[in-house]
Amino acid sequence: MKVVKFGGSSVANATQLRKVADIVLDDPERKVVVVSAPGKRSSDDVKMTDLLIELAGKVIGNEDYDTALSAVMDRFREIIQELELSEDLTETIQKNIQYIISSHESAEWTLDALKSCGEDGSAQILSAYLQSKDVKAAYVNPKEAGIIVSDEPGQAQVLDESLEQLYKLHEREGILVVPGFFGYSKEGRLVTFPRGGSDITGSIVAAGVKADLYENFTDVDSVYCVNPNIVSNPKQITSLTYKEMRELSYAGFSVFHDEALIPAFKAKIPVCIKNTNNPQAPGTMIVAENEAGYGRVTGIASDKGFLTLYVSKYLMNREIGFGRRLLQILEDENISFEHAPSGIDDMSVILREEELYGEKEERILARIQEELDVDMVNIERNMAMVMLVGEGMNSTIGLASQATRAFREAEVNIEMINQGSSEVSMMFGVDAEGMERVVQYLYREFFE
Amino acid sequence: MKVVKFGGSSVANATQLRKVADIVLDDPERKVVVVSAPGKRSSDDVKMTDLLIELAGKVIGNEDYDTALSAVMDRFREIIQELELSEDLTETIQKNIQYIISSHESAEWTLDALKSCGEDGSAQILSAYLQSKDVKAAYVNPKEAGIIVSDEPGQAQVLDESLEQLYKLHEREGILVVPGFFGYSKEGRLVTFPRGGSDITGSIVAAGVKADLYENFTDVDSVYCVNPNIVSNPKQITSLTYKEMRELSYAGFSVFHDEALIPAFKAKIPVCIKNTNNPQAPGTMIVAENEAGYGRVTGIASDKGFLTLYVSKYLMNREIGFGRRLLQILEDENISFEHAPSGIDDMSVILREEELYGEKEERILARIQEELDVDMVNIERNMAMVMLVGEGMNSTIGLASQATRAFREAEVNIEMINQGSSEVSMMFGVDAEGMERVVQYLYREFFE
Repeated sequence: MKVVKFGGSSVANATQLRKVADIVLDDPERKVVVVSAPGKRSSDDVKMTDLLIELAGKVIGNEDYDTALSAVMDRFREIIQELELSEDLTETIQKNIQYIISSHESAEWTLDALKSCGEDGSAQILSAYLQSKDVKAAYVNPKEAGIIVSDEPGQAQVLDESLEQLYKLHEREGILVVPGFFGYSKEGRLVTFPRGGSDITGSIVAAGVKADLYENFTDVDSVYCVNPNIVSNPKQITSLTYKEMRELSYAGFSVFHDEALIPAFKAKIPVCIKNTNNPQAPGTMIVAENEAGYGRVTGIASDKGFLTLYVSKYLMNREIGFGRRLLQILEDENISFEHAPSGIDDMSVILREEELYGEKEERILARIQEELDVDMVNIERNMAMVMLVGEGMNSTIGLASQATRAFREAEVNIEMINQGSSEVSMMFGVDAEGMERVVQYLYREFFE
Repeated sequence: MKVVKFGGSSVANATQLRKVADIVLDDPERKVVVVSAPGKRSSDDVKMTDLLIELAGKVIGNEDYDTALSAVMDRFREIIQELELSEDLTETIQKNIQYIISSHESAEWTLDALKSCGEDGSAQILSAYLQSKDVKAAYVNPKEAGIIVSDEPGQAQVLDESLEQLYKLHEREGILVVPGFFGYSKEGRLVTFPRGGSDITGSIVAAGVKADLYENFTDVDSVYCVNPNIVSNPKQITSLTYKEMRELSYAGFSVFHDEALIPAFKAKIPVCIKNTNNPQAPGTMIVAENEAGYGRVTGIASDKGFLTLYVSKYLMNREIGFGRRLLQILEDENISFEHAPSGIDDMSVILREEELYGEKEERILARIQEELDVDMVNIERNMAMVMLVGEGMNSTIGLASQATRAFREAEVNIEMINQGSSEVSMMFGVDAEGMERVVQYLYREFFE
């Protein structure tokens, strides 16, 4: 059994939905389909979910919501009509939305429930379309499927009992279409996942049914080994491990939300990233282990927008607790840090630029000076991180040498090297100005 | 005016003291001399300070101390007789020791005061010897010189007012001989510095008199650029900066106690390491800044005996405060850490092996598991650190490439790289087994 998930661009309009149907029908193993809400039809279009959020805003604010509701229904109607489906479907979808609006629940729940209507509508439409092609298919509501989550609107986490109930989907016949993005609490209330949560649904369903494969259909042929904006026509990654995917996602690869895959990872379900617009392309496999790739660089991730907070103090390393106290100051301001290299008399903390600014920055600098009595504290902005990712990198002799050679040939100074914690990646800090150049040289070193 | 300090081996016996006198007289600028206690005359000899500690032990324990006292006095007497000085000197030294023994002060003070008799005796002897050669010279007790310290026996810190009073030494004529290792509290009580404190005295005196040069005479020609046990006949360092010296001292260079130099550093007094047994050799200069050396590797320090504490947890980087809490657990057990590289889902802490063992280790592992709910925690021992030191290293393109190439050629895997906090060093972690080999290849890369 395969579980197939289609992202927003794949269900944006009738044309795309026809491709989806073709893909599903192309492989009899594709039995469970998870769908997102209709995405943008063009680059200046609006996503369905955003239209629903606008609608929710009007409803919650007790304003006239007719225009907002029409915008939503027009989108659905357009798809339904192009697919030559019954107007009843449009009415069903509208009734559901109206029911939520009239329910007079809390603002939080109303927003959550309305947001979910995009995915729900997609699922109803796809199911009806498959039926119209004489295919045995059914829409399955998440509650029925067994997607039970914690009751945290917008932040729901799937509960373990969910997996057992999902397995029972094997007992049903035909193709099952499940809307992504939301589940139900134990008490039966609708709750949504964090944004991009259709990936989470797909992952959970794949884990629950112990799928042979979880196919994640999006709008790129594969995961690339480097940002295509920096290196044109880069090599495609044929396969990588869960760990490698997670590390790459961290610093710039945004094919999908890496945390969404965790249920699949835990259940060791293989994942394949494919392109709805080019379904014959092999795509990228994401697997638990990949012996063939051990010791090889799988991908190069890069991102700007980091800064270094640097402190120095004579005999810092004699003060047990100094590092901890510095981190405490950051934690008090709810700041998350990337890495904190320390030396004998100094320590740096690498942060994302948005973590430190304005008054917060002043407060932190003042606290560091007063509480830690440092000799010097300063902030250097405009740093970029470049990360080499690959299983077994930290046991591979010579890799660091190859990597640093690329930096030298690019004539870019390495401001920071972080190797040693992760078994799967090696992180470099450079001035943002040199980032693209260095990435190009690294690509040449490792992929050509 | 130059301040000259002689270490234990330089004042161990009459032969050495004659060399000391020759050195001092060789340069009329050498006006203030700081001396240690007599060191070992041969490799299985006992240092004077250890004899005094034994004596103190007997006295404090109310045991018969005659043999211990004789051992001390025999050493002094031997030197005094060989230098053909008056027996009165022996009596003076013995009276001073007896005075301390009979004073019935606290055990702490008694130990402290007896320990100081080695340096004090050396200073008296050298001063008398110079006088016997018709040189105007005087023994100057630290209280008289103005070495005022905090009242922490064995841990005394010099106070700022000390420097002002020391400057008045300029008003005195002749050569001034000051015993190292101890000072006096504001209340007039004798207090010793931490072990090796003659270096501290020399440094303080050099800062106080604003010396043109502080010459630190020991038993090696210079500071070597690498451990001579790993690379034979290594190049000598002609000059390095305070920062570089401090970093090198951290990981294995034990020419002297680097913290002792801090008063000289703060006052920007140039320091020169020289050899009593080869005083004409130029030695090694330690200075505030060294433009000529910028961007060059000055030395390679290396040390075994480290371990890595490794923890991993899915989504660790989303838990603000995780790193701080891990460090807190270590701090609660009074553990000092060297470096803590963190990744996305994992974090390592590099410790010296002696910090973690037995029950302490069990407690920490248990706390980490319970309080941080990690997926995995383990300890890897037998790690060695190799450190490249040099001002401007972190701004020098290509250095990391050169360094990592040496590792590759040595066929040693780099387990950890820490670059980015210190401007002056770059730290590598390797399995202890490969350390010497890698150091040899690094030496070849950077010094040949």
